[in-house]
Amino acid sequence: MPKELFEPDSIAIIGASKEELKVGHIVLRNLLESGYEGKIYPVNPKADEILGVKCFATVSDIPGEVQAVVVCVPNTFVPKVMEQCGEKGVKAAIIITAGFKEIGKEGAELEHQVGSIARKYGIRVLGPNCLGLINTQKKMNATFTKNYPKEGSIGISSQSGAICSTLLDWASEINVGFSKFISVGNKVDLEEADILRYLRDDPATKVIGMYVEGMAHGTEFMVEAEATSRHKPIIALKAGRTASGAKAASSHTGAISSSDNVYTAAMAQTGIIRVHTIEELFDLLLVFSNMPLPNQYGGVAIITNAGGLGVMAADACGDYGLRMAHLTNETVQKLHSYLPEEANIYNPVDVIGDAKADRYEFAMQTVMDDPGVVAVLVLLAPTDLVDIPGVAKMVSTYKGRTTMPVVSCFVGGEDAREGIRILRQAGIPNYESPDRAVRALSAMVEYEATRERNLAEIFSTVRGDRMRVEKVLRKARSEGRVSLSEAEGKEILKAYGVPVPKEAFADTEDKAVAMANRIGYPVVMKVESPDIAHKTDVGGVAINLKNEGEVRKQFNLMLPLVRERVPRARVDGVSIQQMKSGREVIVGMVRDDQFGPVITFGLGGIFVEVLKDVSQRIVPLSDVDVSEMISGIKAYPILTGARGKKPADIPALRDVIVRVAQIATDFPAITELEMNPVIVGDLEQGVCAVDALVIIRREGA
Amino acid sequence: MPKELFEPDSIAIIGASKEELKVGHIVLRNLLESGYEGKIYPVNPKADEILGVKCFATVSDIPGEVQAVVVCVPNTFVPKVMEQCGEKGVKAAIIITAGFKEIGKEGAELEHQVGSIARKYGIRVLGPNCLGLINTQKKMNATFTKNYPKEGSIGISSQSGAICSTLLDWASEINVGFSKFISVGNKVDLEEADILRYLRDDPATKVIGMYVEGMAHGTEFMVEAEATSRHKPIIALKAGRTASGAKAASSHTGAISSSDNVYTAAMAQTGIIRVHTIEELFDLLLVFSNMPLPNQYGGVAIITNAGGLGVMAADACGDYGLRMAHLTNETVQKLHSYLPEEANIYNPVDVIGDAKADRYEFAMQTVMDDPGVVAVLVLLAPTDLVDIPGVAKMVSTYKGRTTMPVVSCFVGGEDAREGIRILRQAGIPNYESPDRAVRALSAMVEYEATRERNLAEIFSTVRGDRMRVEKVLRKARSEGRVSLSEAEGKEILKAYGVPVPKEAFADTEDKAVAMANRIGYPVVMKVESPDIAHKTDVGGVAINLKNEGEVRKQFNLMLPLVRERVPRARVDGVSIQQMKSGREVIVGMVRDDQFGPVITFGLGGIFVEVLKDVSQRIVPLSDVDVSEMISGIKAYPILTGARGKKPADIPALRDVIVRVAQIATDFPAITELEMNPVIVGDLEQGVCAVDALVIIRREGA
Repeated sequence: MPKELFEPDSIAIIGASKEELKVGHIVLRNLLESGYEGKIYPVNPKADEILGVKCFATVSDIPGEVQAVVVCVPNTFVPKVMEQCGEKGVKAAIIITAGFKEIGKEGAELEHQVGSIARKYGIRVLGPNCLGLINTQKKMNATFTKNYPKEGSIGISSQSGAICSTLLDWASEINVGFSKFISVGNKVDLEEADILRYLRDDPATKVIGMYVEGMAHGTEFMVEAEATSRHKPIIALKAGRTASGAKAASSHTGAISSSDNVYTAAMAQTGIIRVHTIEELFDLLLVFSNMPLPNQYGGVAIITNAGGLGVMAADACGDYGLRMAHLTNETVQKLHSYLPEEANIYNPVDVIGDAKADRYEFAMQTVMDDPGVVAVLVLLAPTDLVDIPGVAKMVSTYKGRTTMPVVSCFVGGEDAREGIRILRQAGIPNYESPDRAVRALSAMVEYEATRERNLAEIFSTVRGDRMRVEKVLRKARSEGRVSLSEAEGKEILKAYGVPVPKEAFADTEDKAVAMANRIGYPVVMKVESPDIAHKTDVGGVAINLKNEGEVRKQFNLMLPLVRERVPRARVDGVSIQQMKSGREVIVGMVRDDQFGPVITFGLGGIFVEVLKDVSQRIVPLSDVDVSEMISGIKAYPILTGARGKKPADIPALRDVIVRVAQIATDFPAITELEMNPVIVGDLEQGVCAVDALVIIRREGA
Repeated sequence: MPKELFEPDSIAIIGASKEELKVGHIVLRNLLESGYEGKIYPVNPKADEILGVKCFATVSDIPGEVQAVVVCVPNTFVPKVMEQCGEKGVKAAIIITAGFKEIGKEGAELEHQVGSIARKYGIRVLGPNCLGLINTQKKMNATFTKNYPKEGSIGISSQSGAICSTLLDWASEINVGFSKFISVGNKVDLEEADILRYLRDDPATKVIGMYVEGMAHGTEFMVEAEATSRHKPIIALKAGRTASGAKAASSHTGAISSSDNVYTAAMAQTGIIRVHTIEELFDLLLVFSNMPLPNQYGGVAIITNAGGLGVMAADACGDYGLRMAHLTNETVQKLHSYLPEEANIYNPVDVIGDAKADRYEFAMQTVMDDPGVVAVLVLLAPTDLVDIPGVAKMVSTYKGRTTMPVVSCFVGGEDAREGIRILRQAGIPNYESPDRAVRALSAMVEYEATRERNLAEIFSTVRGDRMRVEKVLRKARSEGRVSLSEAEGKEILKAYGVPVPKEAFADTEDKAVAMANRIGYPVVMKVESPDIAHKTDVGGVAINLKNEGEVRKQFNLMLPLVRERVPRARVDGVSIQQMKSGREVIVGMVRDDQFGPVITFGLGGIFVEVLKDVSQRIVPLSDVDVSEMISGIKAYPILTGARGKKPADIPALRDVIVRVAQIATDFPAITELEMNPVIVGDLEQGVCAVDALVIIRREGA
């Protein structure tokens, strides 16, 4: 990893300026003011010194080693500067200069050029079009923002300079510190994956916050994210979620946003905690950087001086799935013996409106001694009788000496302010409303559970008959087709052990009858054509044919109908299939440009098409991923045996998903594969893919 | 309405005290300090004067009229005090004293006693166990909280004293004023319905905020809420939503929380804007009290100096369904001509990081001139080059002179503070994150749309054959039954014009066959028993019987089986029904203690039982309510004709819902009625209730 970029011992500012409002001036001043102890070399051919530091005409003129440069010259000068850096042996460049990909085609070409030069010389690049980099351990403010944060344990990667500014401003307000602050800009070289790899091993970083709009290399990101989230929580805000949002994103940075669902899957799989607003990002960074992780097997105890706040916190616990502790009899008795009659001694514990710090403290200590309590939330409403600063001071004493997270929610404005200041100063996360405090705690529990689960993952591999699949693909390619016939699709499935129904091809009425007699009734008849993907839509499927007569009738009905409706399709005949019954599900795969194969699962028919009740995961799939896919749909109870039905054969269904994932891994040429439906029988009755749609990459594409 | 309560010209403080920390002292001091101009009479037998005001031994000793009293004496003295007030001719009492229903049975009895005395003398009562009442127009702070708000246009009703304190503290912080501030306490007399009736006609109140935990009289509340929301927005936070929340609510105030779904229905029907957190309550009160309502036929224009913020705002627009304005070519050209090259001239308009007030102003004015823009959101990130106070001052000039809402989101901490202060001072709603600003604007659009819709509602009435229903009910009562047989249930449906299938009763095998032959195959056979509610569960239903043989076989199979499984049930025979096909839905009614008949609608089977995909509304139902019920389920596309199917007969389904609502209205004795399923045919094919379950109230209950 480019230590020279993140922790350089010497920095040249190329484009350093005497003019106070120029970026090249501000960066130099910031480096000096933050107390950077490495060597600083301003580069400007027209100045002898800037801010009292000796200036050099070019980077080549600097005597001795230059590990990193900050580039602030106009965009068209950047390639030349990079060449000079390369010749000088510079290892890392922070390119603040804008005017690249984000301004259109011309800028994109310039950016490409810069990337090539960097690769040629092995220079690692942050940016261009970024705010720069902060490393508080090195006292290094290599940015053009004046807000230099205090040293702390949060590492940030942000794709938006303005979000960086906002986070820094927020941090100074509520007394939060950062370890590293990295504005990624256009990501010509370093991207989120590289930054995660660095922050993972950075001892100063305890929690990672990310703002992401789009990503070019999803797979690399997932590998790094998974490895990182096992050690440190990653909290990510992915913007450009909705259709309108995505439009704004692409006009902003030119980032290609893949569909939001894929990001959701990627984050779920890698243990990233996804947030949806900047406030939520703040809120979670605050708790993770200040508090120990809770034991996940217990509940939160809530202490309040106002019933209404307690009710709201309890509501939020329900919303976020945060368990409320069931206090032991001993705890309840102890609370009863000390608290006033009107107090509520069950969780939420209501110490009532006239509580002072001593009563709050008694309640806190008592619930923390309860073995079922793993986190404490202290609520306070500004009643006229409460001593807000006193309670704040008391709560603050728990910072550092508790092994469970303690968070607070002192609500109100003016009256609460001094108390909130005390809490912030001490590093007790305080939230403006009960639901935000509960959300923060729930994220901690969620992280613990996910981490434990991810550490225990198993990945299964299937050995399929690759040659058999290759043969099918070769044939299609040789015929210039991208769409495979159903029979070809099933051949691929069979080669990888996915069960398909007994079936046979027939091009005449008599053959169809003979086949149906051999397979056994009832049967399904489907038109066979390489040119028709959705057979039902053109009348090319007939189900539940019960006897010879029905087969004959359908044969003579179906073929003319399909030929009439899709005159240009090649129609080879029909397939006669064993008719299977059971619950219908869909298993599909689409290859995403950024993330690779995405597997989709859902119940068939209306569940997918109308209710959009699907789950998605990205290959490779662990056993946990497969389980979560299946149980993650809302209609899951239908598979487990709702309404008195027998449970479905979920193990066999898991197996099909694993096999499809393997096909996707083994054959990058397959861009799309859908089995709709897969019939899932009752437990131990197996599954059966009754249809298969396969699309392959166009040759040369 | 009790004008004497809300706007008294004379107030006695019963239990006024010389001791500074006593409530009776604080209330008197608050009234004096707020500048109340009516007459003030402290009542305390042991004092001659308090705070310079002449004191009286009892309320009877006061010469002249006393319109209202504030009661602060200990709980056991309250009945006596109320008697004295009654004799004196006092019209209204604000009982601050606690120690009533909320402390248990004894307190409840005391409260009941107070209520009786009040009714006897016609005294209207606020409380007991409340914080009191503020009326800023009367300069009247009849509470024991020191935070007296400035005069403003927000009227508040709160069931939690602490929420009152929090709102008041918040308001002073962000410069928001109140018209009336009403702490309802235990609601022995005045409850939310009364308060809405008062605030509706209060010219000083422009928007109403409510905090509710539970309600005793849902129907009255709905009547008042509907009438009020046509004139003024009502924003309500209903706490005790989740199971755990509801538990805390009942231990707090003893309020009976009915199921949260019923509240959701009640609020949706009456045009109340429901919020889920106290922050959301703040946020919406802020915008409604400060900004004009937007025209609902247009979109929001977003202006930002940071692309990232714009993306997040656009995401939030997607989440909340707030339309983003599509700017006209003219607008885009104008923006293009003035803004820098790098700016984004489409919505969100990005004036980029170095924008000063002039550029923001140009962008604002330009988008506001666009005919498609009905609201403006100004985003600002604390970049180093922006002049935050300058932009804030510019935005502030729009207050009062714009006919569309303008809200802002200046993010960050320290740096943004002065700008935010300027915005607050001017009355521009500023939010800490883009999503909160968007949520606030979306609520305004939602309110406008709901109000328009509610004004156009039609309520249909059905004239049913009441005598025929009464006869069925009488018979069941005479036999001591609460559960009606299916045949009896259908008799009720028929009396109100709900279509049921052709059917006939048979107590022998031969009769069953004869009936089936007459009705026509296929038929359904169901066991007939007044004691079996869920026939399917006991094997008492057989469908799709295609011929005489199948009818005979089933008859001989079913009856012994049911008798074996439910030995104590009276089994009369079977019903033979015409078998209908179509989409299966459920229409049901349950009578809620607080709100009366609640109608539930959903698709049959798994949709209701597994996916819980139902909609609910409370009787009476308007045409809009019925439409919203049907279209409100997620599976609605199944009825409109998803996947190439014909649309269902929704008009006939509407009709059934209206008829069931009428049955519920006409017969309070029916506590439960469920038709599961109702078969809905294709358009113009009608509907048919194939099963009916009816439960009636136990006599004397």
